[in-house]
Amino acid sequence: METQTILIKNTTIIANEIKKGSVLIEDDKIIDITADKGNNGADEIINGEGQVLIPGLVNTHTHLSMNLMRGLADDLPLDVWLNDHIWPVEAHLEGKHCYAGALLAALEMIKSGTTTCNDMYFHMDDVARAIDESGLRGLITHCMLDAGDEEKRNQEIKETEHIIKKHHDTAQGRIKVAISSHSPYTCSEELLRWTRKKADETGLKIHIHVSETEKEVVDSLNDKKKRPFEYLEDIKFLGPDVIAAHSVWLSGAEIALIKENNVKISHNPLSNMKLASGISPVSDLLANDVCVSLGTDGVASNNNLDLFQEMKMSSLLQKVRKLDPTLLPADKVLEMATINGANTLGMEKEIGTIEVGKKADLVLVDMNAPHLTPYRNPISHLVYSAEGADVNTVICNGEILMRNREVLTLDEMEVMNIAQSAAEDLISRS
Amino acid sequence: METQTILIKNTTIIANEIKKGSVLIEDDKIIDITADKGNNGADEIINGEGQVLIPGLVNTHTHLSMNLMRGLADDLPLDVWLNDHIWPVEAHLEGKHCYAGALLAALEMIKSGTTTCNDMYFHMDDVARAIDESGLRGLITHCMLDAGDEEKRNQEIKETEHIIKKHHDTAQGRIKVAISSHSPYTCSEELLRWTRKKADETGLKIHIHVSETEKEVVDSLNDKKKRPFEYLEDIKFLGPDVIAAHSVWLSGAEIALIKENNVKISHNPLSNMKLASGISPVSDLLANDVCVSLGTDGVASNNNLDLFQEMKMSSLLQKVRKLDPTLLPADKVLEMATINGANTLGMEKEIGTIEVGKKADLVLVDMNAPHLTPYRNPISHLVYSAEGADVNTVICNGEILMRNREVLTLDEMEVMNIAQSAAEDLISRS
Repeated sequence: METQTILIKNTTIIANEIKKGSVLIEDDKIIDITADKGNNGADEIINGEGQVLIPGLVNTHTHLSMNLMRGLADDLPLDVWLNDHIWPVEAHLEGKHCYAGALLAALEMIKSGTTTCNDMYFHMDDVARAIDESGLRGLITHCMLDAGDEEKRNQEIKETEHIIKKHHDTAQGRIKVAISSHSPYTCSEELLRWTRKKADETGLKIHIHVSETEKEVVDSLNDKKKRPFEYLEDIKFLGPDVIAAHSVWLSGAEIALIKENNVKISHNPLSNMKLASGISPVSDLLANDVCVSLGTDGVASNNNLDLFQEMKMSSLLQKVRKLDPTLLPADKVLEMATINGANTLGMEKEIGTIEVGKKADLVLVDMNAPHLTPYRNPISHLVYSAEGADVNTVICNGEILMRNREVLTLDEMEVMNIAQSAAEDLISRS
Repeated sequence: METQTILIKNTTIIANEIKKGSVLIEDDKIIDITADKGNNGADEIINGEGQVLIPGLVNTHTHLSMNLMRGLADDLPLDVWLNDHIWPVEAHLEGKHCYAGALLAALEMIKSGTTTCNDMYFHMDDVARAIDESGLRGLITHCMLDAGDEEKRNQEIKETEHIIKKHHDTAQGRIKVAISSHSPYTCSEELLRWTRKKADETGLKIHIHVSETEKEVVDSLNDKKKRPFEYLEDIKFLGPDVIAAHSVWLSGAEIALIKENNVKISHNPLSNMKLASGISPVSDLLANDVCVSLGTDGVASNNNLDLFQEMKMSSLLQKVRKLDPTLLPADKVLEMATINGANTLGMEKEIGTIEVGKKADLVLVDMNAPHLTPYRNPISHLVYSAEGADVNTVICNGEILMRNREVLTLDEMEVMNIAQSAAEDLISRS
């Protein structure tokens, strides 16, 4: 196959230092970063004038297919929301629904500058197909729950084995697979131990929900006489390959365990606020050098996949939590949404920064807008003033997914129609 | 002058009940709401298909000209932010800067669906000019501070008298004037008493900052042996015409005073989070039937004027504050940003709902977007999923200010250039 080159020229590059210049892409990689404004004979020229170039954003906790459930039920107590709305709908999910939801989510992510997701859900063959078609990068896991049932556990393990075999390192390397036990409260110790063993054997990551609600901690103390992270440490589950979503209710001892084991935390501020789960002590985790990244969770509890909102609110929420406006400054927050996300997913050598040799996962944000004027400190504007709709052009793995707000890999109207029909079909069954 | 009619047809009208239909505007007023899809011989036809029609949003606490200071200083302790950044810049403010900043703010408000603001700042002749040119509606006040200095007090009073005389009920009635003492801690009792007296004489509203920070309450207890709202009650300042911005640190007794006096609260969640001021007990105020509306504050502490963000975050912040996901449901939040705002400004007979006889302050939000799909509950989508950029068309006082995202009353590029130059000039002086 012939080599393809793309030159993004005359832009403002948000790297270790902010600089004006050009980025040259060959196939899937960044091969040059230069102050030169020439055209270098590239096959494609993208003029980045008036825009800033950032690493593609990384969303480290998603349930893409839940996009079909956006706005289905809001403002309800958690048990009513789950028992009367989410679970009855999920009981009827088929692969076609998950495909449609994931395709809609992929479209939404592209339009708001996210190039990589970490997705845990069901019917992952169909989710993988949607991610592949969209051109995005994704770490995917089948969400295993056994609630102590051995037959169910064996089914779940079989499905995880299938997903690993079929999808790991496919789609030009854009799709990788991890292993998910849903949570310490929905999975048996056997399943959690199998998860750890499988991760050790394969070198794959583990994706799990931990300590999302206070009730989970109280129940864990009642049932196991230990808090969730203490229990996970006890059964030797914790390690640097564990991606723990939410992690809202943490004792000081648990923060120490997270640090010692180099567990990665996916912070989901908007979901935690909307479901009234609580506020994760993110500034304390960061002060302990824990790697914290950002995730949206599913849109049923958000209700969108816009990481620009997640960046702004993660900062503002910590500031008000501790009454300290210096916490989570803009540059640190942008790192959480980029290189910390890459670190979390074990992709820090490939993505998360704009560097020669890394994959070309790049996003141009248009600064030429009233709410981003006056142009002054681009990182402040990205974190505190911008919104998803300011994203102009998105490149993932060297492929242009969106250019001048036009999505190239998916037919936007068609995807919205497929998703609307699938959502109506799904709801009509429950 | 000949009568002008506009028909917004085939849209989804967000009124007491959500209904499909058309809205007919004659000059500045809504004269018919009908299920009819005909054209009625209107001079202008706007096809609202696939969009929802909401009342223009009302921002009840702004400092428009501070738009020039966006991103100037973030993530700093409050005293450093004020002493080293905001005040030194404000010391050099001239009318031309305030005009440019307000014009930029007006453009930003139009593009994100706000049609009315409640602005307190300096050089209000220039701010009034910007509001007039933009076609927006605004209640404006000169921000009076005397810090006990009689000469300064007399100047401030003179300026307020001038602004009332020159601008009240101008610009086809779109501009009204109120009276502002900056706060109980920056104004003398004499100035606060003058403000109350003037409001009683003129029937104009009072706009003031109260209890933004914990320090303000502690200082008030030290200096006056009373909390801020108790002090204001003591000097007979409180009343139904008082618009109190922020109101973060409130005792139960103060909430009772607010309720008894029917004081209106402008809640500014993002500013309160970003400056780490605290979380206002909004759900408690609402439970006491206090009228709470939404404001952005200036962009120096936000950093934008997007009331869609303010809607979402006001709800999510109360939910997480009390760990109760049922607080501030979407429909109540939309009321806070519309009819409660109108009530706050004393404009509830003119704006804030879509009703025959009211002014035509109307906004079409395009629902045809991936992050608003599937279409299901439009109020949920407006509050939890939408962003400012989803606003498609804006009408204020019967004039189309933006149509299909094209601003008609202001030249967008020119305004951004004016603002950029003014910002650079201002900063170069300090």
